[in-house]
Amino acid sequence: MSLDDAATKPHDRLARQFAPKMEAVNALIRARMASEHAPRIPEVTAHLVEAGGKRLRPMLTLAAAAICGYEGDHDERLAATVEFIHTATLLHDDVVDESGQRRGRPTANLLWDNKSSVLVGDYLFSRSFQLMVETGSLRVLDILANASATIAEGEVLQLTASRDIATTEATYLQVVRGKTAALFSAATEVGGVIAGASDEVTGALYDYGDALGIAFQIADDLLDFQGDSAKTGKNVGDDFRERKLTLPLIKAIAKADETERAFWRRTIEKGAQGEGDLDHAIALLHKHRALEETLADAQGWAARAQAALAKLPAHPVRDMLGDLSDYVVARVS
Amino acid sequence: MSLDDAATKPHDRLARQFAPKMEAVNALIRARMASEHAPRIPEVTAHLVEAGGKRLRPMLTLAAAAICGYEGDHDERLAATVEFIHTATLLHDDVVDESGQRRGRPTANLLWDNKSSVLVGDYLFSRSFQLMVETGSLRVLDILANASATIAEGEVLQLTASRDIATTEATYLQVVRGKTAALFSAATEVGGVIAGASDEVTGALYDYGDALGIAFQIADDLLDFQGDSAKTGKNVGDDFRERKLTLPLIKAIAKADETERAFWRRTIEKGAQGEGDLDHAIALLHKHRALEETLADAQGWAARAQAALAKLPAHPVRDMLGDLSDYVVARVS
Repeated sequence: MSLDDAATKPHDRLARQFAPKMEAVNALIRARMASEHAPRIPEVTAHLVEAGGKRLRPMLTLAAAAICGYEGDHDERLAATVEFIHTATLLHDDVVDESGQRRGRPTANLLWDNKSSVLVGDYLFSRSFQLMVETGSLRVLDILANASATIAEGEVLQLTASRDIATTEATYLQVVRGKTAALFSAATEVGGVIAGASDEVTGALYDYGDALGIAFQIADDLLDFQGDSAKTGKNVGDDFRERKLTLPLIKAIAKADETERAFWRRTIEKGAQGEGDLDHAIALLHKHRALEETLADAQGWAARAQAALAKLPAHPVRDMLGDLSDYVVARVS
Repeated sequence: MSLDDAATKPHDRLARQFAPKMEAVNALIRARMASEHAPRIPEVTAHLVEAGGKRLRPMLTLAAAAICGYEGDHDERLAATVEFIHTATLLHDDVVDESGQRRGRPTANLLWDNKSSVLVGDYLFSRSFQLMVETGSLRVLDILANASATIAEGEVLQLTASRDIATTEATYLQVVRGKTAALFSAATEVGGVIAGASDEVTGALYDYGDALGIAFQIADDLLDFQGDSAKTGKNVGDDFRERKLTLPLIKAIAKADETERAFWRRTIEKGAQGEGDLDHAIALLHKHRALEETLADAQGWAARAQAALAKLPAHPVRDMLGDLSDYVVARVS
């Protein structure tokens, strides 16, 4: 690793490594989001696809295929598939969350309407299945159909568990597997499948994606309480104000005395928040070492991601994936 | 055909013919709409699936497979698939249309919320792909992925074209292909594909489903202006009040003079409807023979459905499908 490389974020190194392939993936995304009959579709999609997301999920697919020595171009189709599924879920999420902003821009449901977001999401989801079919692999279809079901199931679970201070860590993990880890693990697994890798290798790729996704989401929860809004684009306490039961809260609530439980019931369940409540919430998180324990959990998942990588063939891209799982947690340590 | 059979609606004869298989399809639907982690999912789905829809689409799949001599059970998986896609689109449609009633019962978006309808629709859509994957047929997946994309595209087109009195018959047909015919034609085509039928036969099955779906939708548009609400469950003029540009209106508007155009602009584009407007609209439809011409179009599509059937092997079920396409139009003649 050169000094220059050492100073670069792992995500940027992956982007550099796969620049030509990502060009092809982006061209495929643009071509397939077109619609002969309904110009509203590419308008809505372009707003989101061109918004400069990090394209982490498609790169994971390309990385997994590369580690397994794949030399064809089905990895590009699968990378576009994964990004389409991701974009479709973002469109539907913004309707469900009644969001007005994503990545610092107004959401599609605000610019157009909820109807367009629902239907264009459905269109992208169908398009993603068409792309998968083109790879000719039933196993790929099976993996991504399962991932899609897990995503929807996780979102419904989140809906019904939201603002319920009895939410357990097990339910939290189930939700996180749905909303984040299911697509990460499918993205890495299909990269190995398309390369014809052994079950041991595709299993390790699944484990890596799953653990990375969970570490990523837990770190995101932590950032909400200790992040620098200039860097993260989030304001400290957004999740608290939106009454989201993230892992630090669940840990603090599990150790709460009666007075503290009354505080959480008022602020999270009833949503009656006033001045000083965010500071008091953060003080309670510190009192019960909830942020430290949450960080330890994230580190544990990053370590599991590393352990999974050890089962893969040695490859420079494998090392980049290792750096990535370290980085996800290091940014909050 | 016995006298008893002659007196029975073709749909009921199909239901009797496929009663044991439909039992299996219904069992599959119940099993696959379960969710280990999110009990909200089967609640919402059961509300719709148990609401006693006619199950026409899954029966079309079973009928197509039977005509082609199929003897396995993948037709049941595909029939359940088709019903899941249909149910998912109904859930999303009710959100898009902001509907409060379907089949005489409150809609899921009213009983629960829009969020649940969006996410449970996504879940059913994912489940439908899992069922398809189990058939092991990439061609089936291709056909149903294409149909799903056409459905979403048609819905978006309907959204952007709605209430625009410049809507042409070509746009109308495109919308109808999306909202109705795409799933009918996919339902019949995959029945043939799973039976290993020739391209000529699967092509004829596609054509039958396509023409039946279009005839069905046009007849539905006609019923809105001349139906008996006790039989149809719709009130005369519902589409007019909802400012839908159905085929009779498009035909009347195409022949409208300036005064009439001003009427349509006021009632459909601006939605400023008052007492006597529905009667005046119906008078204009009669003046321009729009209902007669719409009926002739429906009959034309029913004839195309019959012509497609002639390319299929002789089979008692083929005759039922012929009666069905006649019936769809006869109920409005």
